[in-house]
Amino acid sequence: MLVVAALGGNALLSRGQALTAENQRENARIAAGALAEIARAGHDLVVTHGNGPQVGLLALQGLAYKPEEIYPLDVMGAETEGMIGYLIEQELENALAHERTVATLLTQIRVDPDDPAFDKPTKFVGPVYDKAKADEMAERHGWTVAQDGEHWRRVVPSPAPVEIPDLKVIRQLLLHGTIVICAGGGGIPVMVRPDGSLTGVQAVIDKDAASALLADAIGADALLMLTDVEGIVRDFGTEAAERIEHLSPSEATALDLPAGSMGPKAEAAARFAAAREGRMAGIGRLGEALEILEGRAGTRVSGAPG
Amino acid sequence: MLVVAALGGNALLSRGQALTAENQRENARIAAGALAEIARAGHDLVVTHGNGPQVGLLALQGLAYKPEEIYPLDVMGAETEGMIGYLIEQELENALAHERTVATLLTQIRVDPDDPAFDKPTKFVGPVYDKAKADEMAERHGWTVAQDGEHWRRVVPSPAPVEIPDLKVIRQLLLHGTIVICAGGGGIPVMVRPDGSLTGVQAVIDKDAASALLADAIGADALLMLTDVEGIVRDFGTEAAERIEHLSPSEATALDLPAGSMGPKAEAAARFAAAREGRMAGIGRLGEALEILEGRAGTRVSGAPG
Repeated sequence: MLVVAALGGNALLSRGQALTAENQRENARIAAGALAEIARAGHDLVVTHGNGPQVGLLALQGLAYKPEEIYPLDVMGAETEGMIGYLIEQELENALAHERTVATLLTQIRVDPDDPAFDKPTKFVGPVYDKAKADEMAERHGWTVAQDGEHWRRVVPSPAPVEIPDLKVIRQLLLHGTIVICAGGGGIPVMVRPDGSLTGVQAVIDKDAASALLADAIGADALLMLTDVEGIVRDFGTEAAERIEHLSPSEATALDLPAGSMGPKAEAAARFAAAREGRMAGIGRLGEALEILEGRAGTRVSGAPG
Repeated sequence: MLVVAALGGNALLSRGQALTAENQRENARIAAGALAEIARAGHDLVVTHGNGPQVGLLALQGLAYKPEEIYPLDVMGAETEGMIGYLIEQELENALAHERTVATLLTQIRVDPDDPAFDKPTKFVGPVYDKAKADEMAERHGWTVAQDGEHWRRVVPSPAPVEIPDLKVIRQLLLHGTIVICAGGGGIPVMVRPDGSLTGVQAVIDKDAASALLADAIGADALLMLTDVEGIVRDFGTEAAERIEHLSPSEATALDLPAGSMGPKAEAAARFAAAREGRMAGIGRLGEALEILEGRAGTRVSGAPG
């Protein structure tokens, strides 16, 4: 099977952990162990990952040095693809004892410049603040901020991914059995100018949406969205709370889930699974990646469209 | 022909220019125009580039935000591969109007942990300072600093590149005619631990040395080292100054050239050209890349070994 595994932000950084290289490497090592099980089971594998905390940190580092020369979001997104991709690649190569070839590719993803998301930033990046500090940062740096659970964070536009110009390269590597790490941080957002050329845009694409588009475009059999919760839970927060084992695409779409976390995953899962019979999308714990793929853990979305 | 084109730091940033994204993009656009000429002439192409200014800037940004959480040099090297690779890839795709596929790969390069370079930092990174400021930065951040022309800069260890573990992936892409951007900043320096696993090391590999190793390993026909001077110049700085059109590998090695700039290029050229009859290495202006390849500009190093 061809499997796309999307690593959630929490899979690369536990809640509350400082964003040091050591912490990220340790989490990359844990992720690599889970991914290696999928590769060892004989599957072809594409790995994607988030970058919300990292791209926010780069922005803060740039602001702390020379705010007037801060890099745009597409360039910082490319930096995070390098940084996070490197850590995952190296740990995955080590976990596989170099039995399989692993490549990390920069990935541009095209968005629509008229996407309404540009007028309404929703994607959380960087650290959490209390309300007063968030307002101060917004005032000082021209940010938009929004509430994320008990805290406040910076938000940036998150347009829908439309097309992956680098798809051909990903296919070339998969042909040779290479494991491909790509579309990090939802890909580097770009748009087409009137003359047909590409240019970067100021946004962060949702990683799950980008992963679903990628999985569909390369004809993957399975899309795994790996995080730190066991799956979609029925009656969440009550005594009757229970993991949902299976949903049809239409059932997944009909659920009322939090917009910031499980909502985009359920939507991406439904869209991917509905596009072709025989596909499955899975949502669950990173450490249970192979079990989710084999139907023994997590929440699976599959079955007839509609 | 299979051509490896190494873009010098000055090819991506003019002397004295601020390291803004705009300036880097503008220079990437100029570089892409020259690289596109090589691709359009029907050659296979691998592009490498330096990262000295960029990796130094990332270090300063990190120090300005939380000095105690600064990223190690291998991780910052990976970030610069993402950032610079993205700008070159996008501009090259635009210059070629998407006639050829372009891929940017992260590249780890193995060094020897016992390389004497670790005891004697020589590679310039980051901005220039006057002597007093350089001494202050060295004191405050534990840097080693050294004189670079009229100025002072931070220096970091620059061990010799030994092996490119990701070579197989580069070959896979070249098989499909894809233009590959890789080994940025001399590659991400890694070493093998006693258990056989890879880990990053605190260093920056010389881009020309890494490019020569890469060009040799993939069996390239030509290695172009592209910079902002017309080639190796005889009697430099005198009225009799004159570009040298051709050197044998042994003549190139015998020249007395500045260690910081032309010396490593001549050495890399000689090593690459001497390894196989029929190869050529060229040194010269970025804007004359195709002319250098065709023997109409720059300094060419080729001929029998010894």
